[in-house]
Amino acid sequence: MQKLTIVASLATLLSTIPAIAQEAEKPEFPSPNEIVDKAAPEQWRAIAASDLLVMQLVPDAAGKDRRVVIQLMPEPFSQGWIRNIRKLAAANWWDGTSINRVQDNYVVQWGDASEEKALPEGLETVPESEYTSTYNAGLFDFVWRYDGRQKAEFTEIPRPSLVSEANKAPPPNFGDIFDAVGFIGSMPIAMTYSRQVEYRVGRVNKPNQIWPVHCYGMVGVGRNLSPDTGSGAELYTVIGHAPRHLDRNIAVVGRIIEGIEHLSSLPRGTGPLGFYETADERVPIQSIRLVSDLPTADQPRFEYLSTEGETFAQYADARANRRDPFFIMPAGGADICNIPVPVRRVKGE
Amino acid sequence: MQKLTIVASLATLLSTIPAIAQEAEKPEFPSPNEIVDKAAPEQWRAIAASDLLVMQLVPDAAGKDRRVVIQLMPEPFSQGWIRNIRKLAAANWWDGTSINRVQDNYVVQWGDASEEKALPEGLETVPESEYTSTYNAGLFDFVWRYDGRQKAEFTEIPRPSLVSEANKAPPPNFGDIFDAVGFIGSMPIAMTYSRQVEYRVGRVNKPNQIWPVHCYGMVGVGRNLSPDTGSGAELYTVIGHAPRHLDRNIAVVGRIIEGIEHLSSLPRGTGPLGFYETADERVPIQSIRLVSDLPTADQPRFEYLSTEGETFAQYADARANRRDPFFIMPAGGADICNIPVPVRRVKGE
Repeated sequence: MQKLTIVASLATLLSTIPAIAQEAEKPEFPSPNEIVDKAAPEQWRAIAASDLLVMQLVPDAAGKDRRVVIQLMPEPFSQGWIRNIRKLAAANWWDGTSINRVQDNYVVQWGDASEEKALPEGLETVPESEYTSTYNAGLFDFVWRYDGRQKAEFTEIPRPSLVSEANKAPPPNFGDIFDAVGFIGSMPIAMTYSRQVEYRVGRVNKPNQIWPVHCYGMVGVGRNLSPDTGSGAELYTVIGHAPRHLDRNIAVVGRIIEGIEHLSSLPRGTGPLGFYETADERVPIQSIRLVSDLPTADQPRFEYLSTEGETFAQYADARANRRDPFFIMPAGGADICNIPVPVRRVKGE
Repeated sequence: MQKLTIVASLATLLSTIPAIAQEAEKPEFPSPNEIVDKAAPEQWRAIAASDLLVMQLVPDAAGKDRRVVIQLMPEPFSQGWIRNIRKLAAANWWDGTSINRVQDNYVVQWGDASEEKALPEGLETVPESEYTSTYNAGLFDFVWRYDGRQKAEFTEIPRPSLVSEANKAPPPNFGDIFDAVGFIGSMPIAMTYSRQVEYRVGRVNKPNQIWPVHCYGMVGVGRNLSPDTGSGAELYTVIGHAPRHLDRNIAVVGRIIEGIEHLSSLPRGTGPLGFYETADERVPIQSIRLVSDLPTADQPRFEYLSTEGETFAQYADARANRRDPFFIMPAGGADICNIPVPVRRVKGE
């Protein structure tokens, strides 16, 4: 009967719209995907092979290859854990470990199920203070802000107008529960202004903070109770609605840019917190390697849409206000996790 | 090595905390789940069997039963489509149809893959205006608001304080991109105040609106291009981050309250929009029935935590500001989809 077409790319349907639509006064509004597809080559930024991890799982029951690619977080975020992760990958530490936990609408977690495998020498113990960075003016050269659509000083993010304005729609609202959100490189980040906050240790005067946020596909570091911060050997990724409560409580070290379906479609664990209850349920990890440590011919190459350019601004605006043909009512805003930074494979030369 | 413990229930770890922690000055903060577990019996509300759909899929490869339970939306939302859905279920219309689409971080969709199966007689054609309701004072007796923690007049939702306040933490922020969010019964809803908005047909003066929002597990009605609104025969559920752009563009008719893992863990479709490309990939639906049409002995019974009570207010507050032992930094807020209304099976008498 009718076919659900609730997403961006509607090329086939578009072709069925009569020609008269082309003559109407209203401008045509491309979908977010169409905007990205038309981005000029110089809008794309290469991701360094040394910032990519490849996790190779055993093939699935049908023999299908299962490969997951993770982009590591850039400076200044979580760098101590990322140094550990590089050492763990170089030591082939994850080879023979497994996916151990799949909790619906939450996380998939991997590492050493035995909890007895010795870690490599020389891993850092990173303090909790590294969950966030204190921002400085220099950083904001790299922060994309909607209101500026350019490199900009830090200014308040637009909030929705609460009153009617004749002939003027309210501005898109990219706010969240934070003071501001934006991007550094391809990563979603949030900020707060200086304020008093309540820690478990009592009220603390916090300076301005900036940190990578948990969105679908972001990768974080498992840990035990505070003050443990995890080594980076236990990792997880988000497979549900953004768990905002984890931000600033766990180190976020990267984002899955290819193959998350090999994790998100795994059977949910039936033990507490979604842990698998039997060894048979765990999915063996063949290897995790830095792409730069693979033979050159085997190195996948990726690029992301610059978050500082005009194309990204148009894309984010379209994510917040869909006006392509399927939509009758633009949302008027989008939270940071509804504006995933486009990533694509670089085609072979 | 270390075990990731990033969720609510930490009973086993709690038991390892030395007794001295009990003597500290700080009060103990229960987790959201602990708050729900201690809710008094009168805080729970039965869900009528006539408002529940059971979708029975064929057993999985291991022979495991796969049953999904959907609670239908209460008045005043989407009632025309829900009347259609009741007729489709009564006609056994979905028997032999299938799950046809699984798009990662987006939706699972089911219905008639052939698009040729005749619909029952007498289905309604529901207008787009029914995607939302115009609120009236009476409705707000049923809307839970954080700032009031009680039946309340409609007032502006708290936004985060942007300045330091000595000895005072900013109030939790339950805002989203909307003017306000809350619950009616067990369903998440959003509201906007009267304003000018831009439709595809031009700028329109919209009155106050209230509508059910797309969160993980919410169920909506597939449709073709406007002005089609779908009959209710094609349904989908959200299996990723809340797709805010779908709100007010599609009818939301319910919420999956049990068994979503049977949908969210299905292999992702490799065709456009995540549609399965071959008939073999589709998961057959044995039946979809109203629970009230099942033999009494086979009727599962469910109840939800009242969103009007003090327990729910405590739960929502804890979701926005986790202070149970794992957490070192409360988020200071939660969006509407991070406060899922607790639902549980009623134990047999």
